[in-house]
Amino acid sequence: MVDHETIRKRLLSLRSAMKAEGIDEYLITSSDDHGSEYVGDYYKVSEFFSGCTSDNVTLIISQDEARLWTDGRYFISAQREIEDTGYDLMKMGEKDVPTAGQYLEEMLQDGQVLGFDGRCVTARDGMNYRRIARFKGARVDSSVDLARDLWMDRPPMPCHPVRVLDESITGEGVEDKLTRVRALMKQHGASYLMLSKLDDIMWLFNIRGGDITCNPVAMSYALIGLTTVDFFLQPGEETQELRDHLRVHKIKLHDYDDLWDYLRDYHFEGPILLDRMCTSDELFHVLNEKEKIIDAVNPTTDLKAVKNPVELSHIRDVYLQDSVVVCHFIYELKKRIGKETITEVSAANALDAMRAEIPSYLDLSFGTISAYNANAAMAHYAPTEDSCATLQPSGFLLVDSGAQYMGGTTDVTRTIVLGDLTPAMKRDFTLVACSNLRLLYARFPEGCTGVNLDTFAREPLWKYGIDFNHGTGHGIGYILNVHEGPQGIRTKAGKFRRDPAFVPGMITSDEPGIYREGEYGIRTESITECVEDSVTEFGHFLAFAPLTYVPIDLDAIDTGYMEESDIKLLNDYHKAVYEKIAPYVEGEELSWLKEATKPIRKM
Amino acid sequence: MVDHETIRKRLLSLRSAMKAEGIDEYLITSSDDHGSEYVGDYYKVSEFFSGCTSDNVTLIISQDEARLWTDGRYFISAQREIEDTGYDLMKMGEKDVPTAGQYLEEMLQDGQVLGFDGRCVTARDGMNYRRIARFKGARVDSSVDLARDLWMDRPPMPCHPVRVLDESITGEGVEDKLTRVRALMKQHGASYLMLSKLDDIMWLFNIRGGDITCNPVAMSYALIGLTTVDFFLQPGEETQELRDHLRVHKIKLHDYDDLWDYLRDYHFEGPILLDRMCTSDELFHVLNEKEKIIDAVNPTTDLKAVKNPVELSHIRDVYLQDSVVVCHFIYELKKRIGKETITEVSAANALDAMRAEIPSYLDLSFGTISAYNANAAMAHYAPTEDSCATLQPSGFLLVDSGAQYMGGTTDVTRTIVLGDLTPAMKRDFTLVACSNLRLLYARFPEGCTGVNLDTFAREPLWKYGIDFNHGTGHGIGYILNVHEGPQGIRTKAGKFRRDPAFVPGMITSDEPGIYREGEYGIRTESITECVEDSVTEFGHFLAFAPLTYVPIDLDAIDTGYMEESDIKLLNDYHKAVYEKIAPYVEGEELSWLKEATKPIRKM
Repeated sequence: MVDHETIRKRLLSLRSAMKAEGIDEYLITSSDDHGSEYVGDYYKVSEFFSGCTSDNVTLIISQDEARLWTDGRYFISAQREIEDTGYDLMKMGEKDVPTAGQYLEEMLQDGQVLGFDGRCVTARDGMNYRRIARFKGARVDSSVDLARDLWMDRPPMPCHPVRVLDESITGEGVEDKLTRVRALMKQHGASYLMLSKLDDIMWLFNIRGGDITCNPVAMSYALIGLTTVDFFLQPGEETQELRDHLRVHKIKLHDYDDLWDYLRDYHFEGPILLDRMCTSDELFHVLNEKEKIIDAVNPTTDLKAVKNPVELSHIRDVYLQDSVVVCHFIYELKKRIGKETITEVSAANALDAMRAEIPSYLDLSFGTISAYNANAAMAHYAPTEDSCATLQPSGFLLVDSGAQYMGGTTDVTRTIVLGDLTPAMKRDFTLVACSNLRLLYARFPEGCTGVNLDTFAREPLWKYGIDFNHGTGHGIGYILNVHEGPQGIRTKAGKFRRDPAFVPGMITSDEPGIYREGEYGIRTESITECVEDSVTEFGHFLAFAPLTYVPIDLDAIDTGYMEESDIKLLNDYHKAVYEKIAPYVEGEELSWLKEATKPIRKM
Repeated sequence: MVDHETIRKRLLSLRSAMKAEGIDEYLITSSDDHGSEYVGDYYKVSEFFSGCTSDNVTLIISQDEARLWTDGRYFISAQREIEDTGYDLMKMGEKDVPTAGQYLEEMLQDGQVLGFDGRCVTARDGMNYRRIARFKGARVDSSVDLARDLWMDRPPMPCHPVRVLDESITGEGVEDKLTRVRALMKQHGASYLMLSKLDDIMWLFNIRGGDITCNPVAMSYALIGLTTVDFFLQPGEETQELRDHLRVHKIKLHDYDDLWDYLRDYHFEGPILLDRMCTSDELFHVLNEKEKIIDAVNPTTDLKAVKNPVELSHIRDVYLQDSVVVCHFIYELKKRIGKETITEVSAANALDAMRAEIPSYLDLSFGTISAYNANAAMAHYAPTEDSCATLQPSGFLLVDSGAQYMGGTTDVTRTIVLGDLTPAMKRDFTLVACSNLRLLYARFPEGCTGVNLDTFAREPLWKYGIDFNHGTGHGIGYILNVHEGPQGIRTKAGKFRRDPAFVPGMITSDEPGIYREGEYGIRTESITECVEDSVTEFGHFLAFAPLTYVPIDLDAIDTGYMEESDIKLLNDYHKAVYEKIAPYVEGEELSWLKEATKPIRKM
């Protein structure tokens, strides 16, 4: 963590620069040119100026005020990171907390200037900020990157070689994908698709990059015409393999930096489809001056969410191997706790090392979260070697982890009992288990969206006046980003797009939690595959099948908080865990697994 | 039911008239000028031409085809009504069934003419049809009312005197309502509010009419300025009481028919707020030519949904009296069945007569649905004296009924056991009871919409691959329409508006069902009041409190399909029913009530 004195100095110099440039309100996001959720270090401008490491940050700075918006996952950590720095935390989604737009609407004065870097603001947000500024008589300058001069040791743009995936891994060739994408473009009446979204581009071209930690994507753009494909990539990222691959598929390669001139000179012959949620304000305006824009979810986003049979087969295989490792980790941790010194970080390192031994392992899919007791109340706590907690033989260790394999992207959270628990800890753990299992074994008619399904998971918590302020589930990529749209399981539908219905082949997390600030945090996350269930006289029903097979810690279960049917679900799940994992373990560990998955009864 | 031969003849004459007028596709709705759900007989043009009595119908007729769209509540009845008439049923919301708009998009040819009566099509639908016509090179003629010449014995426009409600009934004066409405108008940046929605107008002016059966509304319009109020009403509807009331509140009264000239001449001084979902295409176009239109839910719709303490107090009182009557009806029915001849209609008449004896009774709130066994599989079955079923001492009688009282509008459904049941009937009845009770006793955080809550009710059915194709709950008016927005409990959010969050004071039905075509139909409907529940460290929680206190028939309960917690909910509910109703009954009926509400245990 950057010390608060440094942040205060940076804020001072930022304000001087704002004065010099005539900027009254300066807005900084945590995003890159591609609307990415996670970004390369080069783009961590909001972290540089605020010290806040959250992935979803908006800063608005004036001479008098400095505000930082982030979401519920980061309220606790952000509050700690920005204490005494001069920033005020704005808790997104909380009642009576204005959004960044509402705040601007209140603050901007006639004749003032709102500045931001139009490459790191999405077109959707940019449009909103411009509307507000116009309404208040203010001017927008969207070409202001004050970090350029103030961030001396700014890291370089990420630039790593791109690899090509074999069709035995992707299950579908580039031509077939382009055909399906173009059919959807035509449905929208579009002649072009402008892709900024990095994982969409990787999926479409059957390639993977290494520009963002844990996210196998390459900084790039693609312009898909009805017969042409232009691909913009940094020169240092090409390999001979890639050049051959692109030539075969008639994809024209350009320098990443040439995009802007290329588009300005391009003769468009019809409307351009793009997704304003992940296209930069800058790119939107360049294109909007040239041709009619059709704003919709990228067809690639929808297509990539439904995994094909080859992908699903690899995913099931990879999740099983990943589950075996997590089971082994839990077994080892429970065996060693109290007998040797284990810290949050050493535990995480041990798990990371175990995963790295799986032959198809490529990378982690995100930094392993290993959070002991109160630390786990911060939903995205990241321990550091220097400051992390030493585990004691009591309470909970929450471990949220996953990896990239040549065959899938994993994500799993288990809250592991290290020793004594209070009755309240058991109650909360049990409620989270019920929440997780009811969603995992939900049956629902086709057409249901994540808002319908969210209630399966929340109901057992709401009953006790408990809730958690993050989504219940997110889509997951295939050897791609661990967070992937368009589907999600959450209480509120997306504000700007209709939520998609679930369809078989979608891979989604199921991760309810309970967080007691200053005490402990519990989350149980399994990954699900949406599958066909049945056709009855009432319609076509779908269900989820688990991909994750890791015991839910029986040491923290209090059956007093479970319905008979919840107990059955837990026993069913554990029976499946034993059947799946047992073939891969032996000896004492097998005995442990048997005990950890034994059927339980109502006390 | 009009005979099919007559309908075929009317369709023939309609097609001749279309030819004469040069109309290629003619669209007829079941609506009136005000977007009302239920309409006066004058407006039943779709029923005249198709014989279909559903409340939600769109007809599209060409020389070759005649299509009828209606929703899931009416699939079974509509199919029967239009058999052999030349109409094809289009089941709204079913997969692969095009909407009316999609159908037009497919059928309309370049140069053709789409005709409809722009007063009976909402502005929202009109805009869609116009867009489609333009896209297909067709022309729209929105001034075509072919019923005018073809419907010889068309009933006159409804015209009944308007009554004024005392503030002891409404709990809020007209001035205070206008102040709150104008505050919301200003929030929207509007200088005017154009109200077409009849129940909104009644609520705002504290008046009630009698122009639509069971819906105490008067055909009217209101134009609310920031300092002025114009009210358009048929001359025959005024009374001295009304004239005095309007004068006191500075509401200027006009002739209903003068609206159009008045608006054309009016000098608007700012934007006009209106709700395109319940403003006619015709009115929208008149206003759109004069001033900027702001399309949003009427502020009156939102305000009226949240009942004030005076209204709530009357509502609770009226629901108790109504529940006492329904309990008495069930007691009498169960006592007499098998001993005397009872038909669907005679049962309904008996119940209606009992309600009419309550001193504050005004009218029914809808035609009582009394449906025996297979008839109940038609969600909105209406028995007739001639064709109705005679009840036997076996199976189910579904009774859905309610009334208007000076103190509230009621609605309740119970499915009553008349004798032997199959195990499948008991299973379905029990699942519907669980569904009803889980929603009735739901606890949920503020911010939840009806889509979040819908899953409480559906989950117990989905588990068995069962579903029902109507909403789970609708808002209910106060001495007003039994169906009232904006809130609802349903699987899909409204397509064109964001669903509102539930807030204390909203009155909403809870009415899951299971319908087995040709066998039986089950629905259990209680009305709920949204109430404060608790504030915890996780937020502000709300709940429902029952307004309906009528036993759920224990003769059809199979505890094998219930969780322990479901049994507890049923026992809790029945305990409350007994405590509320017992003071009003005595003797044998009291013994029956005690037995009907006795606690049950898992078998």
